[in-house]
Amino acid sequence: MSYEIFETKERILAENDNSAERTRQALKENKTFFINLMGSPGAGKTSTLLHIIKRLGSKYRIGVMEADVESDVDAKTIADTGVRVIQLHSGGLCHMDADMTSRGMERMGIEGLDLLIMENIGNLVCPAEFEVGADLRLVVLSVPEGDDKPLKYPLMFTVGDVVLVNKIDAAPAFDFDIEAFKPRVLALNPNALFFPISAKTEEGIDEFCSWLEKKIDERRAEYEAD
Amino acid sequence: MSYEIFETKERILAENDNSAERTRQALKENKTFFINLMGSPGAGKTSTLLHIIKRLGSKYRIGVMEADVESDVDAKTIADTGVRVIQLHSGGLCHMDADMTSRGMERMGIEGLDLLIMENIGNLVCPAEFEVGADLRLVVLSVPEGDDKPLKYPLMFTVGDVVLVNKIDAAPAFDFDIEAFKPRVLALNPNALFFPISAKTEEGIDEFCSWLEKKIDERRAEYEAD
Repeated sequence: MSYEIFETKERILAENDNSAERTRQALKENKTFFINLMGSPGAGKTSTLLHIIKRLGSKYRIGVMEADVESDVDAKTIADTGVRVIQLHSGGLCHMDADMTSRGMERMGIEGLDLLIMENIGNLVCPAEFEVGADLRLVVLSVPEGDDKPLKYPLMFTVGDVVLVNKIDAAPAFDFDIEAFKPRVLALNPNALFFPISAKTEEGIDEFCSWLEKKIDERRAEYEAD
Repeated sequence: MSYEIFETKERILAENDNSAERTRQALKENKTFFINLMGSPGAGKTSTLLHIIKRLGSKYRIGVMEADVESDVDAKTIADTGVRVIQLHSGGLCHMDADMTSRGMERMGIEGLDLLIMENIGNLVCPAEFEVGADLRLVVLSVPEGDDKPLKYPLMFTVGDVVLVNKIDAAPAFDFDIEAFKPRVLALNPNALFFPISAKTEEGIDEFCSWLEKKIDERRAEYEAD
């Protein structure tokens, strides 16, 4: 008797890639730059997002998808800024996959948006496994979490394009050594970029937002040229 | 045509319960008190664990299972204290289920241990879904993570018996309101207990360890009486 071996996880990831491709097409049609914002619970994803909106909101039309297991505390905060926002509930799941992301985009509507940001579920493990079709994978790691996190959660720092090292104002109070942290990330992803920031004191926020603005303009120019 | 509806998740959780029961039997045979230590990456699980070992290591024979996606940095730290320790790798998974826990215990050997502690993978979502057969579900939540976390990660605070509010020395630097935090947890689990601690300054550690000691002695007396 012959039988089939069904690689469930491979199948799930293949389907995920299809959904990510659908998202990329939608982004291209709308000339929208898409950021997948990831990090631990409490790393400072929402407060960083607020600074991005404040700095870039007059230049770009911004939309935000707030993903959470439950609650809508973050969506409320973001809605107060006046940008387009939707709260996505994962129904117990610990990450957003490409299909959930694509459905969220369809539900909110990305027409007319220059910049779309999805705040993923606070988790250093699972969201890293699911490519959602973003132009930028932005990881927020906060100083109190410790400089050893790339050793323990390597996939997140392998897929992350940029690491925002947040709460840098609290560095003296915690044993966080950014010079030890950086090579641990670069060993996983030699192209990773770092911005030490403080969403509280706003240190480093302008530098990051200037970099991001350039990146968005480059990508949108590519869309125009296509 | 009739067809089957297979509730995969229910089946997985039912099998998980069987494995948890196997673990409870092993704990009973060995009169071992078992703690499932959970929390976000960088909340301070390992440093709290070191304090427990220091306070209770002369009274109890302690064993530690360090669960990580990768690396063995925590196991190395724990091994330096001289207690029995094993590093468990989850192979990419974001939590330890009951079967992985039970296999870890068999591999390390819990014979002669009074106290067994498993440091789960840093994650506020998935580990909460899997009952591993522990006597105590101990959650470490650190002040920099924010007092809104029970709203966003309700299951963890529903299953947690005790919440250690760590890095309490840093409270003035962060907007953490413990009086706002507690009712959010109690709404999910009215029996939850709280200990504000600082693994850095050792504030509150003695109080928690005294409480834990009493709890361990009570449980072991029950085993003796059986």
